[in-house]
Amino acid sequence: MTVNEASALLKQQDNILIITHKNPDGDTLGCGYALWGALTRLGRRVKVVNSDDIPHKYSYLYSVHDKTAVDFKPEFVIAVDIATPDLVGKPYQELCRNADLCIDHHGTNTMYAKKTVVDAESASCCEIMTRVIDELGVKLDDYIASALYTGLITDTGCFRQRNTTVDSHLLAARLMNTGIDWQELNRIHFEQKSKSRLMLEQLAVANMDFTLDNRVAIITITQDMMKLTGAVPGDVEGITPIARSIEGVEVGVTLRQLESGNWKCSLRTHNVDAAAICAQFGGGGHFGAAGFECSGEPDDIKTMLVNAIKEVLK
Amino acid sequence: MTVNEASALLKQQDNILIITHKNPDGDTLGCGYALWGALTRLGRRVKVVNSDDIPHKYSYLYSVHDKTAVDFKPEFVIAVDIATPDLVGKPYQELCRNADLCIDHHGTNTMYAKKTVVDAESASCCEIMTRVIDELGVKLDDYIASALYTGLITDTGCFRQRNTTVDSHLLAARLMNTGIDWQELNRIHFEQKSKSRLMLEQLAVANMDFTLDNRVAIITITQDMMKLTGAVPGDVEGITPIARSIEGVEVGVTLRQLESGNWKCSLRTHNVDAAAICAQFGGGGHFGAAGFECSGEPDDIKTMLVNAIKEVLK
Repeated sequence: MTVNEASALLKQQDNILIITHKNPDGDTLGCGYALWGALTRLGRRVKVVNSDDIPHKYSYLYSVHDKTAVDFKPEFVIAVDIATPDLVGKPYQELCRNADLCIDHHGTNTMYAKKTVVDAESASCCEIMTRVIDELGVKLDDYIASALYTGLITDTGCFRQRNTTVDSHLLAARLMNTGIDWQELNRIHFEQKSKSRLMLEQLAVANMDFTLDNRVAIITITQDMMKLTGAVPGDVEGITPIARSIEGVEVGVTLRQLESGNWKCSLRTHNVDAAAICAQFGGGGHFGAAGFECSGEPDDIKTMLVNAIKEVLK
Repeated sequence: MTVNEASALLKQQDNILIITHKNPDGDTLGCGYALWGALTRLGRRVKVVNSDDIPHKYSYLYSVHDKTAVDFKPEFVIAVDIATPDLVGKPYQELCRNADLCIDHHGTNTMYAKKTVVDAESASCCEIMTRVIDELGVKLDDYIASALYTGLITDTGCFRQRNTTVDSHLLAARLMNTGIDWQELNRIHFEQKSKSRLMLEQLAVANMDFTLDNRVAIITITQDMMKLTGAVPGDVEGITPIARSIEGVEVGVTLRQLESGNWKCSLRTHNVDAAAICAQFGGGGHFGAAGFECSGEPDDIKTMLVNAIKEVLK
C-alpha cells in the first residue's frame, strides 16, 4: 500500500488504537505519538499503547498523550515500526496480529497486517510517518515535529550511522525549521547517560581482553557487574560498540551473562563477516553486527570464539 | 568582504599559501584542503601549511596534497578558520598576521587580515568555504566534498551540538549526494578511539567524585594517569564532557594536571553559568563551558571550586 492510500484509509477511521513495540525505542514511540497528535488534530479518538514501561526520557511525548487519554473500544488498529507481532508484548500481540494497518521500515516485515506500508530505504519509520501526516493535511506542530525528530535521531544515532540518508538530513532541516527544541532532544538522547550505565562501561573497559595482535577486543559483562553498578539490560546496548571502536580492532566481542546464567555473545566487526562467524554457533545477524547465545564457562566460550575468528582473520 | 568578492579576488591570484591553525582540527584542515583542491583544479600553484604534525586520521586529506606538493614563493596568503594570528604556530605567525585574505566563522575574529570574510552564524567554516568554491565555479568532486564534510561533522559533533543549523543539514545532504564515503568519514572521526584514550577515560571515570547531592561530578586527570595509559593531551578533550553527561549532574568539572604541574580546570554545565564561576578564579568562557588555570593541591582546588559552585546552585 502506498503512503497516499494509507492516508486515505486513515481519514475514514475513528476510535483508533496505535500499537508500539516492546522495549520501546525512539522510533516506535516517535511514530506512535506523532500519528496520535495528527489524528487528534483531526478530531479523532486515538490512543497509543505499549506493553512495557516507557523510559522516563520520553516523558515529553507520553505525558501529553496520557493527560488527554480517553477510553474507547478500538475500531481500527495500527502497528508502527513493528516487523512481526512477536515484537509486541503479550497484552497486545493478538490485536497486532489482526492490525488493520502497519506502517514500518523493516525489510523483514512479515506482512501480518491487513494493509502494510513498508519502505526499507527509510533510515527511520518516522520518515515514512512524516509523509503519512503530510498526506493527512496536518501541519507539523511542535509536538508532532518533536516526536518525528525523536525517531529520526534515535534510529540514525543522530546522523552518525550508516543507515542515514540524504532524506534524513532534509527532514532534520525541515523539522528544525518548525522551531522545535532539537538541542534539548539531542541532549536527552545522546549526551545524557545514567550513572550506573557509565559505571558499568568503566568496569567493562577496565577488564577488557585483547588478543590476536590487538585485532580482537573482548568485553565481558557478568551479572555481578550488573548488580554492583545497578545497571539495567538496556544499559548494555550502548556498551556493545565499544570494543570495535578501538583503533586497529577488527572484531569487537561483548560477552554478556544473562539472568539465566547463559551468555549472549555480540560481535561488531570492521570488514569481517560477523554473521558467518556467529552462524557457526547457531546465531546470525548482519555482516558487521551479529550474535548468538550459549552456555558454559566464559573462558571456554572466549577460546572457542577466538579460534573461529582466527580462521577468518588469517 | 562578501563571499562573492572573496572569490573574485581569489580568481586573480596564483602562488597561493593557505595557513591552517595549530592543533589542527577537521574544520581548519577541511577548509584548507578543500580550497587547495578547488584552486588546483583552476590550475593555480597552491600549498596548505601547518606548524604541527597533522593527526594520522586526516591522511585521506594530506596524503593527496603532499604527493603533489610544489615549491614556490607565496604571492598571496590565505588564513582559514583562524580568529587571531596567535592561533597559528610560530613558523607561520608573521605570514598570518599579514594575510591577504581570511575566511573564518568566529565572531571573535580580530580582523587582522587585509580582507576578511566572516560569518559567525555558520556552524563550521567549511560551510562558508563551500560558498566560496561554488563562486569559483569549481565542481565539488570527491576530494573537495570529503574535505568539506570533514569540517562540517567535526565542528558540529556530527550534527549533535547546539551550533548545528538547518544549513548544516542541507550541506550534509548535498555532500552525500556527490557520492563521498561519508560513512567512513563518520567512522574515522566519531567511532574510532585510541586504546590509550579509552583507558584514560576508564581511569578517569573510576576515580570520579560526586558532591552536592550528585549535582556536581568531578573528574581528575593526573600526569601519572597520562603516562600510565600513554594518552596524549588531545585525548583529554573528549573526556571533558563526560562528567556533565551523567543524568542529574548540573556541573561537570575536569581537573587536569599540566606538564608544568599546574591544573587546568574545565567546567561544563547545564543551566548554570560556568563563565561566571570561572571568572572568580581569573578564567572565562561561555555560559555552558568555561575554564581557568591554577596551582595547588587538587583537593584544595576541589574544595575551593565546590564552595563557589554551591553558592550558584543554592
